[in-house]
Amino acid sequence: MAASASLSAQAVVSRALAAAGHPAVGQPDRVALPAGFRLGWIGGGGLRSSPAAVAPAASPRRGRRSGWGAQVRAAAVETLEGTAATAALVEKSVNTIRFLAVDAVEKANSGHPGLPMGCAPMGHILYDEVMRYNPKNPYWFNRDRFVLSAGHGCMLQYALLHLAGYDSVKEEDLKGFRQWGSKTPGHPENFETPGIEVTTGPLGQGVANAVGLALAEKHLAARFNKPDNEIVDHYTYVVLGDGCQMEGISNEACSLAGHWGLGKLIAFYDDNHISIDGNTEIAFTEDVSARFEALGWHTIWVKNGNTGYDEIRAAIKEAKAVKDKPTLIKVTTTIGYGSPNKANSYAVHGSALGAKEVDATRQNLAWSHEPFHVPDDVKSHWSRHTPEGAALEAEWNAKFAEYEKKYKEDAEILKEIITGELPAGWEKSLPAYTPESPADATRNLSQQCLNALAKVVPGLLGGSADLASSNMTLLKTYGDFQKDTPEERNVRFGVREHGMGAICNGIALHSPGLIPYCATFFVFTDYMRAAMRLSALCEAGVIYVMTHDSIGLGEDGPTHQPIEHLVSFRAMPNILMLRPADGTETAGAYKVAVLNRKRPSVLALSRQKLPQLPGTSIEGVEKGGYIISDNSTDNKPDLIVIGTGSELEIAAKAADELRKSGKKVRVVSLVCWELFDEQSDEYKESVLPTAVTARVSIEVGATLGWQKYVGSKGKAIGIDRFGASAPAGRIYKEFGITADNVIATANSL
Amino acid sequence: MAASASLSAQAVVSRALAAAGHPAVGQPDRVALPAGFRLGWIGGGGLRSSPAAVAPAASPRRGRRSGWGAQVRAAAVETLEGTAATAALVEKSVNTIRFLAVDAVEKANSGHPGLPMGCAPMGHILYDEVMRYNPKNPYWFNRDRFVLSAGHGCMLQYALLHLAGYDSVKEEDLKGFRQWGSKTPGHPENFETPGIEVTTGPLGQGVANAVGLALAEKHLAARFNKPDNEIVDHYTYVVLGDGCQMEGISNEACSLAGHWGLGKLIAFYDDNHISIDGNTEIAFTEDVSARFEALGWHTIWVKNGNTGYDEIRAAIKEAKAVKDKPTLIKVTTTIGYGSPNKANSYAVHGSALGAKEVDATRQNLAWSHEPFHVPDDVKSHWSRHTPEGAALEAEWNAKFAEYEKKYKEDAEILKEIITGELPAGWEKSLPAYTPESPADATRNLSQQCLNALAKVVPGLLGGSADLASSNMTLLKTYGDFQKDTPEERNVRFGVREHGMGAICNGIALHSPGLIPYCATFFVFTDYMRAAMRLSALCEAGVIYVMTHDSIGLGEDGPTHQPIEHLVSFRAMPNILMLRPADGTETAGAYKVAVLNRKRPSVLALSRQKLPQLPGTSIEGVEKGGYIISDNSTDNKPDLIVIGTGSELEIAAKAADELRKSGKKVRVVSLVCWELFDEQSDEYKESVLPTAVTARVSIEVGATLGWQKYVGSKGKAIGIDRFGASAPAGRIYKEFGITADNVIATANSL
Repeated sequence: MAASASLSAQAVVSRALAAAGHPAVGQPDRVALPAGFRLGWIGGGGLRSSPAAVAPAASPRRGRRSGWGAQVRAAAVETLEGTAATAALVEKSVNTIRFLAVDAVEKANSGHPGLPMGCAPMGHILYDEVMRYNPKNPYWFNRDRFVLSAGHGCMLQYALLHLAGYDSVKEEDLKGFRQWGSKTPGHPENFETPGIEVTTGPLGQGVANAVGLALAEKHLAARFNKPDNEIVDHYTYVVLGDGCQMEGISNEACSLAGHWGLGKLIAFYDDNHISIDGNTEIAFTEDVSARFEALGWHTIWVKNGNTGYDEIRAAIKEAKAVKDKPTLIKVTTTIGYGSPNKANSYAVHGSALGAKEVDATRQNLAWSHEPFHVPDDVKSHWSRHTPEGAALEAEWNAKFAEYEKKYKEDAEILKEIITGELPAGWEKSLPAYTPESPADATRNLSQQCLNALAKVVPGLLGGSADLASSNMTLLKTYGDFQKDTPEERNVRFGVREHGMGAICNGIALHSPGLIPYCATFFVFTDYMRAAMRLSALCEAGVIYVMTHDSIGLGEDGPTHQPIEHLVSFRAMPNILMLRPADGTETAGAYKVAVLNRKRPSVLALSRQKLPQLPGTSIEGVEKGGYIISDNSTDNKPDLIVIGTGSELEIAAKAADELRKSGKKVRVVSLVCWELFDEQSDEYKESVLPTAVTARVSIEVGATLGWQKYVGSKGKAIGIDRFGASAPAGRIYKEFGITADNVIATANSL
Repeated sequence: MAASASLSAQAVVSRALAAAGHPAVGQPDRVALPAGFRLGWIGGGGLRSSPAAVAPAASPRRGRRSGWGAQVRAAAVETLEGTAATAALVEKSVNTIRFLAVDAVEKANSGHPGLPMGCAPMGHILYDEVMRYNPKNPYWFNRDRFVLSAGHGCMLQYALLHLAGYDSVKEEDLKGFRQWGSKTPGHPENFETPGIEVTTGPLGQGVANAVGLALAEKHLAARFNKPDNEIVDHYTYVVLGDGCQMEGISNEACSLAGHWGLGKLIAFYDDNHISIDGNTEIAFTEDVSARFEALGWHTIWVKNGNTGYDEIRAAIKEAKAVKDKPTLIKVTTTIGYGSPNKANSYAVHGSALGAKEVDATRQNLAWSHEPFHVPDDVKSHWSRHTPEGAALEAEWNAKFAEYEKKYKEDAEILKEIITGELPAGWEKSLPAYTPESPADATRNLSQQCLNALAKVVPGLLGGSADLASSNMTLLKTYGDFQKDTPEERNVRFGVREHGMGAICNGIALHSPGLIPYCATFFVFTDYMRAAMRLSALCEAGVIYVMTHDSIGLGEDGPTHQPIEHLVSFRAMPNILMLRPADGTETAGAYKVAVLNRKRPSVLALSRQKLPQLPGTSIEGVEKGGYIISDNSTDNKPDLIVIGTGSELEIAAKAADELRKSGKKVRVVSLVCWELFDEQSDEYKESVLPTAVTARVSIEVGATLGWQKYVGSKGKAIGIDRFGASAPAGRIYKEFGITADNVIATANSL
């Protein structure tokens, strides 16, 4: 039984790795599992060899506390102080971190040494004494999450991952800092470096991602934990700086974190008083802690973040004791601590120290080692994390085996969330439409899809930025995710689009099977674009449900009417911009969105009613562009009319008219340019034959970009000005978004 | 002397009107000046006829306090209470506002009645008792500014403008609410409706605009006021709702307002506990007032915003007494106050009440009038604002005449700021470059332009989002705009891009001659895109100085490297996207940006050094696209190579090589697509002749959109993936942004 439990647990892990797009067990180069994993690898590496250390006591809750791994941790946080020898080693480890950062930045002659030098103490305590992780499996589900929101300080995290034994950051990787093809890019990138949870650098994003990670933990814990088995149980730690604090997105996300009472979110605010332009006094004099208290957070102030190790430890202990609020630990540090001439100045923020100052810093901190050197005692001290991490994971695997035995159904669902494996036949749940189905707005059809999917896709959860009743995003069979009902799946983001997007990135990156969706009016993607770009970059398969996708929203006027938004997302790498025309295409868009776990999807949906069109298909949507009607033969139409979304109907109407006068007209739905561009040349030629240059496109947005498909001899009908406030029908007419205009334009070619 | 003073003052006003794009004096249909303005129009209209009322006492400071207008205002705020009759009239006026909103929304069957019904009391007090404005000249320089940040409640402001006597909102305009071509669009639009200061609707923008308006006032007051003549002296009022409060942008802007100590900024927070998704409890439980105190604001709570008129008045008085901090007045109201069945629910937020509920509300508030009716006594009560406003302006004009007499030089400069008239020959200050000038990054060349312009353009001010030393935006001859040095012109925005953009919109819309610029890395336009779109929509000529404009920034990696940003702005209406290639083109870009006062400009600038190219010209930049070199004749090159910015050098190099092998090659700089598209067909044909289909473009960004210029047979070289972290030269090579690639591509055509 123990063996089968292990098997099952390992299977979960393997699937998780595969789903995360990483080589599974057996390809140790990227993510190696400990040797002898299945049999219990205990015995080597200086580890206590009692099997009891791996298999916890009967009650997993008590087991975690009394098990071997937990004992070490608890002791660490509470008592890793006292002996001079230990304190000296801590100091040495902290200086190792500082100099790895200094040396790497110096070698690259580019980067940010200041933050790692100032934050090394809290970094050391987190990775060496507090956090639960397995360096040989960075994707272990129940690991504590760490986010460096002040991503420019990435050498801090690279140094910590290196010391902790992550295979992704070896000495040569540190030496390749910021170089082509290295695993140590200039800002932390989860898709490059296992051990990095999210991609940061654009300030404020990371702390909002952390809110998403903590939300995911709270949600999954509430859904799956049992009184006798708390199978989901980890903390989320984040380090953020003054820059993150100034960004509005962090206030949005932290307001929600306070509202939701995310007690296992612990944020370290690196209060170093320096930003690029100098002392923060020039632009940032608010009382940050008081603001966080107003947001519903517990706050603690560590006044000596440079050498006050016990202060930091005590703060973490206090933070963990506060279960119903997130905690902000303001840690006052000196940026560039140790640099005699540059510490506490902006000079140390974002440039290499320079050889002379590196020498002076080495002297100042009595660091006689060569660049990139990790002293043996430091190395040896940190080496325990490899066996210890494996033990933590093995302990959890055993716990999962127990869980699986007792709670089979829940275990199956949790496994789907952990691995990202979709239940067989899930796509059959999508609603089917025929041309006879009633006309409806695609935002309403979207709600039908969401509700259908929620029943079969266990990781689907999300909500709207205070527009649920307009975006039509409520899951009717679920309640609201709230402080006291975190097991529910409707998330109420309030009017906080930017925070919403970044929180969804955090949710998506928590577990491969979590599929967050979020919604607002399409025009307000402008508020969250930085988060959406990061979805695309960091491969977070968020579904962006963007309704009111054109002047078709009518009276709200130009502030609310998107124009340039479609093309702006079509130009963004690794994101799918889908604009379905009816129910069938909306279902197709959701099929695409759910399947694309490593690139986000934006669904542009109408406020206004649209007919169900003959010829639309889910398979067509999956190809991005396809023929919905044609009266020509041999791939030689006289004219191709191309439309998307709400204008596909107009394209179809115009074609009907033109055919009456004997023309051979093809109508193409170009619902997703990115997918169409990925098709084979033959397929593309079968839809848009090169020889047919008479082409008209119609779309109620900017025409820029359409030249790609209509060609030099075709014409694009669209809107290259701002919209207007009036009933939708009137605006469509005034702006020439009509079948008559398509016909006139076609006749003019 | 009095006559000439009037003349001068009127001239200032006229220029202000003209600069604002509105018909000047003599076209009373849009902005009428009072009849007899020049001679002193006093005597008619029920006004006290003492000339002393117009010409204040010798000291303008005391004069304002003791002058007629001021007396009325002071009395109003402090004593408009007491008699039952007056209280009844106030109530009647408030209900008039409520029903104008209810009736207009009902007629349009679209809109937001809830806010106007709840905020009518504070609206009445502001416009009837507190604010200093001239309804017949909405552009009077020294008016108090009012911003409805919760723009969906625009019927509140339309009703107030109507009652106050603004010609822009007559009864027929109210009846045309949200209809095609009306002056009463679905959200407030400054470019449609004189009397509206800024364009709002996207939440949080308005309060940030208001911070910009208040900054402008504080700055101009510090620069121009004299101990004996405070010629700049007005308040900025803003009404914001729960939605605005949730948006991160408002926290950013309000943090700055607190930092800067904008004592004349008074914000009314409509605390109605309802947003679209229901009670704000579901997503917004922070302590807003405590947050604002943490941001350095004075806060007041009016617990009864529905009928507590004296509470509101007392709060305003208290707010005005606090001179060193902005004030947040939290006014607890009932959304939809008066509607018996829908008040205090989301149902009244964004939909017409419906005939039945309108009737019930009329009954409930004992309102027996026809739709759109303004009772005679209310009308008569408000009618005094026309003469009173004219008197305020005349008083100020007299004060300006005094100022002009004593402080001739300052008066000239202030007039330039008020009117937007640029000093003659200003463009000659722009630095000149030749191909022999040293290679430099366009961000550095930009700083040379900014510093040159600052000397001759008095309204130029701005700064960076904590990247001044990277964006190169410091004005070297000025200090920092700070709480105690508001006369300075370097603004330190901190890491708050979104707030920065919206604050700059407020500055630009304060006075036609204020030319704000703001800066960050180009990729972080994603953080401020909503504000930039509003610059474009509301015709605020902000200059966006966006450096580090490509993968050329190198090691910071893909989070910091723009790809899709150029095309995304090229697709946005009414904004100029400029990407200069060298010093001459940078100077040209600034010339364009300064001249375009009614559309914003985005300057994409390099981090890396670029050579000064032969053939570039300021005139060329003004045309958007032009030939920089050509060895063909008769407009028949074999090949056209098109580049922008940092790739123009590569285009030129490739052309040189290709010419060696005998090809006739033209090199075109397409520095600003929008300007090029505006040129005559002949000009465009002279640059890109239709007959020449062999075209190659090169630009380190998304290729989408380039098909417009390279055509079906040409090729676009660019980057359609995310960037990478490495030294810039390496990335350019890896991504094929090289002359070799241009040559190979050209040869493949």
